Amino acid sequence: MNDSLSPQALRHTIRSGAYKGNTSGLAAGYVQCNIVILPAAWANDFLRFCQLNPRPCPLIATSNSPGDFSLPPLGDIDIRTDVPSYRVFRDGKFVEERADIAALWQDDLVTFALGCSFSFEEALLADGLEVRNVTEGVNVPMYRTSIDCTPAGPFAGKMVVSMRPFMAADAIRAIQICTRFPAVHGAPVHIGNPALIGIGDLAQPDYGNAVTLGDNELPLFWACGVTPQVALEAAKPPFAITHSPGCMLVTDLRNSQLAVM
Amino acid sequence: MNDSLSPQALRHTIRSGAYKGNTSGLAAGYVQCNIVILPAAWANDFLRFCQLNPRPCPLIATSNSPGDFSLPPLGDIDIRTDVPSYRVFRDGKFVEERADIAALWQDDLVTFALGCSFSFEEALLADGLEVRNVTEGVNVPMYRTSIDCTPAGPFAGKMVVSMRPFMAADAIRAIQICTRFPAVHGAPVHIGNPALIGIGDLAQPDYGNAVTLGDNELPLFWACGVTPQVALEAAKPPFAITHSPGCMLVTDLRNSQLAVM
Repeated sequence: MNDSLSPQALRHTIRSGAYKGNTSGLAAGYVQCNIVILPAAWANDFLRFCQLNPRPCPLIATSNSPGDFSLPPLGDIDIRTDVPSYRVFRDGKFVEERADIAALWQDDLVTFALGCSFSFEEALLADGLEVRNVTEGVNVPMYRTSIDCTPAGPFAGKMVVSMRPFMAADAIRAIQICTRFPAVHGAPVHIGNPALIGIGDLAQPDYGNAVTLGDNELPLFWACGVTPQVALEAAKPPFAITHSPGCMLVTDLRNSQLAVM
Repeated sequence: MNDSLSPQALRHTIRSGAYKGNTSGLAAGYVQCNIVILPAAWANDFLRFCQLNPRPCPLIATSNSPGDFSLPPLGDIDIRTDVPSYRVFRDGKFVEERADIAALWQDDLVTFALGCSFSFEEALLADGLEVRNVTEGVNVPMYRTSIDCTPAGPFAGKMVVSMRPFMAADAIRAIQICTRFPAVHGAPVHIGNPALIGIGDLAQPDYGNAVTLGDNELPLFWACGVTPQVALEAAKPPFAITHSPGCMLVTDLRNSQLAVM
């Protein structure tokens, strides 16, 4: 995939079915989103879950009304076809992965687009910081923690975090940079000893891949967009759809537009 | 001393010679400054030292011209009398402490007013964070580090830092809050392992008093206003005057006016 495609051109390629892969590094400079699609009867509780847990679930946009598959604030989007790969859940259990969901669309479905760490990773790299998972070419390591999310109706669970290691001065700089981007998880939620948030072994992530941690480095932990998927598994809605990990909705919003200052 | 006095009333009390003590906690809400006074022949190098090392030496104001003992940007100030206690240095060596310097004033003296940690401690406390040295009622512990300042002429030396311990989430919040206040040292320069910046034992500060460090707490280190005094000792100007530790110039600027956002 040509990584200099505009977000519109990239979405059209994805819409045509010609690309079904990871969107990391594509349409550089543009916001990519985590996607959760739920029946309207479950949407209000999930909306409240996002509002109560803005760091793991930073809500960027929702559909205008149930059944509407556009997302005008994010561009000319058809959410049934514009994500490279979808995961379908029934009763909270993953049942299949597919490249479009047109055949599954229902007139009661509501779409939630949540911020994604790709945006803040770009800001860190642009400032000259090293992002270890990017350097090592792997998915960021993610861990289930002991931190409780604030529940909303059936949606509940522990926070999932992603980890990136830094030397102390760079860790402080990373905190400053990410503070500008609350819409994409914002500042880290923890720094240092992983045991304090219930992580037993950094070498054994629950999702993604382990990365090298230098002797003098501190692990920095960010609230992660996998958290809502864990809450979804707990809530067990009869039907739900998400993006596949790393295969995000590419939007027309610029990352810099998410900066609060 | 009545801690609800206005900065003007407090300065007038100090000017009269009726108060010669520590200004911590007085004139709450108003900026207090570290003071360095030097002959004009040494002023340009010291100014450059401040510009090159803005975190330990955040310059808030200088006198309009050599010999001028006012500081109009900071209030109706006579720098010869308005600091509760001064320290006099000759050839870089401390020679005496005095309550005013009117008798020592020279028409070539230039005053530098530098930001002080009292301002950011107030912002941390206002956000609900615990500041350990305040809780324990002692002077903040300060340490000489292995971090080189950028030299300017004869002014050179290692950075001195102050340390305040926090749990990880509060440390991240403290970094965010202090980032708003670059004029009073700004964000910390280090977090975690003290050995990485050349500090051997946190229980043995070079200045101030040790504070309790909890098992699960991280030490946060800020560039400190004692740094310019160390540079002064290295430069050995024939004559120099500073405030006495903790006995600051109280100004009419509000701490909130120093926030960059």
